[in-house]
Amino acid sequence: MSDGTPWPALLFDLDGTLIDSVYSHVLAWRDALEACGIDLPVWRIHRSIGMSGGLFVRALGRETGRELSGEEVAKLQQLHTEAYERQAPQVRPLPGARELLERLRGEGVPFAVATSGNAVNARVGLTMLGFGSEIPVVNRDMVTYAKPNPDLFLAAARLLDVPIELSIVVGDSIWDMLAAQRARALGVGLLSGGYGREELQLAGAYRVYDEPADLLDHLDELGIRV
Amino acid sequence: MSDGTPWPALLFDLDGTLIDSVYSHVLAWRDALEACGIDLPVWRIHRSIGMSGGLFVRALGRETGRELSGEEVAKLQQLHTEAYERQAPQVRPLPGARELLERLRGEGVPFAVATSGNAVNARVGLTMLGFGSEIPVVNRDMVTYAKPNPDLFLAAARLLDVPIELSIVVGDSIWDMLAAQRARALGVGLLSGGYGREELQLAGAYRVYDEPADLLDHLDELGIRV
Repeated sequence: MSDGTPWPALLFDLDGTLIDSVYSHVLAWRDALEACGIDLPVWRIHRSIGMSGGLFVRALGRETGRELSGEEVAKLQQLHTEAYERQAPQVRPLPGARELLERLRGEGVPFAVATSGNAVNARVGLTMLGFGSEIPVVNRDMVTYAKPNPDLFLAAARLLDVPIELSIVVGDSIWDMLAAQRARALGVGLLSGGYGREELQLAGAYRVYDEPADLLDHLDELGIRV
Repeated sequence: MSDGTPWPALLFDLDGTLIDSVYSHVLAWRDALEACGIDLPVWRIHRSIGMSGGLFVRALGRETGRELSGEEVAKLQQLHTEAYERQAPQVRPLPGARELLERLRGEGVPFAVATSGNAVNARVGLTMLGFGSEIPVVNRDMVTYAKPNPDLFLAAARLLDVPIELSIVVGDSIWDMLAAQRARALGVGLLSGGYGREELQLAGAYRVYDEPADLLDHLDELGIRV
C-alpha cells in the first residue's frame, strides 16, 4: 500500500485574508488619487485592490481617460503610503487568523504567505498576527509580476517545496482566484475583503468562507486531516 | 385608443446610490464600534450598511455575542456621527448622479429620494448633488421602520402620488432590493455601494448598473421613454 497523496499546502494572501486592512487601503487610495486630481468612485478602487500596481495604473487610465506619467505614479504611491499609515493603527487581524495559522503550524500542515505588498507591509502584517520569520513569506519585491499573474503563489509553493498543483490558494479577491487558476492551484475565497460570494465563485473559488475562523472550522472540506 | 400605462416613477436610495459615501460610513462605524470595545471585521459592517439602526444593533448582538444597552446604542450612534463628520469632506457625488436627476427633471419623469439617513444627512447629500427642496425626499425620521421594511419607498411613492407597483426602486444594497420586493416595486441595483452584481441579482434586482452614469445611459432598459 502506498502512502497516498500528500496533504495540500496552503498559500495565503495577506490583506483582506489574514488582516482586516482592505477598506483602509481603499480609502487611502481614494485620498491619494484625490490629491492628484483623480476622481474615482470608491467601489472601483475596492475592486482593483490586490492587483499589481502596474495593472492598477492601467485600469486607472481606462476609468479616467488619461495616462499617468511615471512621476505621477510614484507620487500616487507615496501619497497612498502616507494615507495608509494614518489608517494603520485601526487595522486588526481578521477573526480566527492567528488561531488558523497556529493550528496549521501545530499540525505540521505546510503553509506560506504570498502578498502583493512589499517586504515592510508583509512584516508588519505578520507581526500583527503574532508571527515572525518562522512563517515563509513571498512579497512583491521578490517576483517580477504581482497578481493576477501566478508568480507570487508559484514562488510560495517553491519555497515550501510543494508542487503548485497540490496547493490551495486562500484569498479574498478575484485577483487571487485568477492567479490560483493560472497557477493550476485550487482557489478558496474568503468574504473578509468585501467581495461577494458569487464573484469569488465565478472567478473559480472551489469554496468560499466568511473569515479565517470559518475556514478553520471547515479544514476537513479542503481535505486537510487535522 | 387609451393613453397606455404611465411612466414608472424612480425611487432612489441616497448613500452608495447617488453619493459615494458607503465606504466612509463603514470606516466611521468601525471607529465608533472600536471605541465601544466592539471588534467587528469591516466587511460585516459593510454588509449591514443601509439596514435600519435597530436591525443593525441586533445583527451586532449576534456577531459579537452580547446585547447592547440603550445607552451603548446611543453612544455608538453619537461616535459614528462624529467619525463620519471627519470623513465627510472627502465624500463626492457618484459619477452621473447629478446628470441623471437633471435629465429626469427635464423630461418630467417622477422621482424621489428615500434614505435611511436622517433629515440632516438627506439635505447634505442633496446639496452636494446641486439640488434643494425641489426634490421630494423621505428620510428616516418620517417613517416607523427603515429598510429592509418597505415603508421608506411606500412613503416616497405616496409623496409622488404614483402607485408603488408602477415604481422602480434604485439602490446599492440588498436591503434596498429586499424592501423593493416587499413593496412590490421593481428593484434596480447599482454596484457603486460595493456589493457584487450577483448579490444584488439574487436579492431581486431586475437589472444591475455600475453607477448612476451607467443607469442614465440605459434608461430605455427600464422602459423610460426620454
